[in-house]
Amino acid sequence: MSDKQQTALSPRRDEDFPEWYQQVVRAADLAENSEVRGCMVIKPWGYALWERMQGVLDGMFKATGHRNAYFPLFIPLSYLEKEAAHVEGFAKECAVVTHHRLEAKDGKLVPAGELAEPLVVRPTSETIIGAAYARWVKSWRDLPILLNQWANVVRWEMRPRVFLRTAEFLWQEGHTAHETREEAEEETMKMLRVYEAFARDYLAVPVLTGEKSEGERFPGAVKTYCIEAMVQDRKAIQAGTSHFLGQNFSKASGIQFQSREGKLEHAWTTSWGVSTRLIGTLIMMHSDDDGLVVPPRIAATHVVIVPITPKEDSRAAVLEAAEALAAALRKIDYHGATLGVEVDTRDLGGGVKNWEWIKKGVPVRIEIGPRDLAQGTAAVARRDRGPKEKEFLPMADIPGLMGGMLDGIQQTLLERATAFRDTHTRKIDSLEEFKAFFTPENRQKPEIHGGFALAHWNGSKEVEERVKDDLKVTIRCIPFEDSPEPGICIFTGEPSRQRVVWAKSY
Amino acid sequence: MSDKQQTALSPRRDEDFPEWYQQVVRAADLAENSEVRGCMVIKPWGYALWERMQGVLDGMFKATGHRNAYFPLFIPLSYLEKEAAHVEGFAKECAVVTHHRLEAKDGKLVPAGELAEPLVVRPTSETIIGAAYARWVKSWRDLPILLNQWANVVRWEMRPRVFLRTAEFLWQEGHTAHETREEAEEETMKMLRVYEAFARDYLAVPVLTGEKSEGERFPGAVKTYCIEAMVQDRKAIQAGTSHFLGQNFSKASGIQFQSREGKLEHAWTTSWGVSTRLIGTLIMMHSDDDGLVVPPRIAATHVVIVPITPKEDSRAAVLEAAEALAAALRKIDYHGATLGVEVDTRDLGGGVKNWEWIKKGVPVRIEIGPRDLAQGTAAVARRDRGPKEKEFLPMADIPGLMGGMLDGIQQTLLERATAFRDTHTRKIDSLEEFKAFFTPENRQKPEIHGGFALAHWNGSKEVEERVKDDLKVTIRCIPFEDSPEPGICIFTGEPSRQRVVWAKSY
Repeated sequence: MSDKQQTALSPRRDEDFPEWYQQVVRAADLAENSEVRGCMVIKPWGYALWERMQGVLDGMFKATGHRNAYFPLFIPLSYLEKEAAHVEGFAKECAVVTHHRLEAKDGKLVPAGELAEPLVVRPTSETIIGAAYARWVKSWRDLPILLNQWANVVRWEMRPRVFLRTAEFLWQEGHTAHETREEAEEETMKMLRVYEAFARDYLAVPVLTGEKSEGERFPGAVKTYCIEAMVQDRKAIQAGTSHFLGQNFSKASGIQFQSREGKLEHAWTTSWGVSTRLIGTLIMMHSDDDGLVVPPRIAATHVVIVPITPKEDSRAAVLEAAEALAAALRKIDYHGATLGVEVDTRDLGGGVKNWEWIKKGVPVRIEIGPRDLAQGTAAVARRDRGPKEKEFLPMADIPGLMGGMLDGIQQTLLERATAFRDTHTRKIDSLEEFKAFFTPENRQKPEIHGGFALAHWNGSKEVEERVKDDLKVTIRCIPFEDSPEPGICIFTGEPSRQRVVWAKSY
Repeated sequence: MSDKQQTALSPRRDEDFPEWYQQVVRAADLAENSEVRGCMVIKPWGYALWERMQGVLDGMFKATGHRNAYFPLFIPLSYLEKEAAHVEGFAKECAVVTHHRLEAKDGKLVPAGELAEPLVVRPTSETIIGAAYARWVKSWRDLPILLNQWANVVRWEMRPRVFLRTAEFLWQEGHTAHETREEAEEETMKMLRVYEAFARDYLAVPVLTGEKSEGERFPGAVKTYCIEAMVQDRKAIQAGTSHFLGQNFSKASGIQFQSREGKLEHAWTTSWGVSTRLIGTLIMMHSDDDGLVVPPRIAATHVVIVPITPKEDSRAAVLEAAEALAAALRKIDYHGATLGVEVDTRDLGGGVKNWEWIKKGVPVRIEIGPRDLAQGTAAVARRDRGPKEKEFLPMADIPGLMGGMLDGIQQTLLERATAFRDTHTRKIDSLEEFKAFFTPENRQKPEIHGGFALAHWNGSKEVEERVKDDLKVTIRCIPFEDSPEPGICIFTGEPSRQRVVWAKSY
């Protein structure tokens, strides 16, 4: 078998995308399913991605005036019921705590100590945080409240898929309360822009931004805005949402304040969140048939050095050179932080080690062997290029070149993803064309098949539902347009205010 | 009313310590009880302390070779049952999930979708993590596994108290698996030393280290080691624990590996954790009758600048000087990080603002008024000194002096806490003396009353239980001693290997 056959993933992306995804996760050792249905174990290599995401986003939240806090895991059932649309949206996926101890009965432990009121494990925290805000807010002087929490949430999933759809997931949820509608709307949009910038600048994920249609809105929100990405099977993935909640939740929770005019008014609230789903998005966006590809700006480990030590007599010198290079690289400032550099000194073959790091998606791999050492060079490989492609660079030059090389990889990934999305996005002006665009059998015909269809729509929820039932295609977002181009709805022939984005989605 | 009367807390520490504690928490706006029994809301000023603790500890864990991961919130009841002592220890305080959705019934939402097997919300994760390790470990080459997780846990509490004892709390739990008993024992001790150093160097909390007696051991552990602090009411608080689990959990979970000799063996495991209880420890250790006192090394905000702007014409100049000083201070490197500096520009009186920051425990307060400005000075006050005590320092000198001043505060707090503990720790050699030492009515007689009693004990669990029942005093730890001093048990007259530490505790 060739090296390639031994090591690339099976199946390839174009053979079976969902199974390929599972293989990337497994090969990079990111996460696995636990024996608790729908709950994943996030393994260290996967969790390191989440830690980096947390670190960067947390800085962006603080820079926009937010602080962190923590609210209870459990929500009394009666709180959830206060907002009718909200409870309706979440009732089918709530984990419910009904007892507070275990007791032996007939030699078996059974739940005991039944609670007077069942507690729901938070699927999201608008209602429990709303109850706190109602206690805290008395006057307009107490506003705005700008808080975020990093937490776990639970939404019972019938068809779980690691990172993308899990019963328990990790996320952040921002919750803010404001004096005026305008301020709350501004906040909603500001955080959407934070998500957009984060996705683009760190994850190398180009996203569309826009509003969700009524059918896809967060339960209880007045408006839901989103960032939507196209991954490599041309499907859409919602990577983050920002909700303008109007006064719905402040009325449900009683968040009232004395206004500047001395009147009692309800606050205007927002909420916004991204989750470990971002890891799934990242995987499906950039990875290839060799495994995971991590954009340098979100990588915890930027460079791995693989010493090649075939002979005992040159072993010490090679290891020393590897450690010296690692030390020099660790001193580099890369966008305000130090580089993550590992030296893989394990007693395994160079090829085995190299492929392991390819699968783990490390942006740059450096091999140093006795011959390199003699010539003062090292073999440098970039994860955005083929697995065999190496550049022999003078060892002394590598630290100085590394920042630019990493930025180059980052840019390549963003450009590739943007080009891919643009190639598979098309204006569609007839229903026939629309159907062909989404017919799986047309997949190999890029001239008629695609991912994002920009099509006119009459604004009707019924039409949206019909398309969803017939073709499994939904409106991903109604893009922000300075001068929307009116047209004719391709489904009804009725007038349309603007084109909206249709796609199959995760 | 004098300024002092308006602002100091009521009651004082010596009047009603438990109520004083609640007042410190409230005055500093650290946390509050939620309407979910036993679950607290950690407010931004309290959460910032936790974030700092997380940041420092996380760095220490990584420096000792650990990585972070994340395991499921829910534990199948059958997992918990695998270790008999473990489930026995936690059965009475388990929140149990029995249903996975809500359904309308007679116009009311009720739990529906009963689970085939109830799920316990993790009170600790040995069993669920053990199940994962059992999947991962095949050979001695897979060991050690050195992981940590930052998570929320739930232990139903009948008498909750904010930060000290809450139904839900935040913590970290390290879980490691090793090839040999010796390695696991070494790990247990290494992490105990990490906790000890963290408490001393960051929290300014001097701790005793030692082993727990059998009665105070973690359910399922072979040995439990702890760090124990004495707070200002002379009670002990267990601030962190490190457990040597032997092969108990690896046998329960089936963590087996092929040894170097080719035999199938069970791994040796450890676990270790600290929680948001550390915040409660910090509060009770250093705070005074004016409110919270935060040691500089754990503070998120080190300095607050309060501009005094009585007249409109000098207002702009004062604010400008305050911002300039803040900018200069923010450039200072304080133990490898930048200083947290706030300028309080709120439209409130200087006295009101000043007292607010005193109560919030900010290490250094700087007032700048028009007169200071004219003289090129500012009034600098340290939180470890009286609220009225100020030093007028040349403005230009302040940035250069700040690092030393903060270190001075840190040192004062540690010295004070150490002196307090030592003053209230005594060798006790008779039962009569022991009883007097712990009789509340003797509290005002420091010559016979105290906090930590170092007394001989015959090693019997029954004696320990009797003392607990009679006097509410327990063994806090069996200190590590290079050359233990043998003696006579004060309770039974039997031989004793060494003195152990007795105290009332939280």
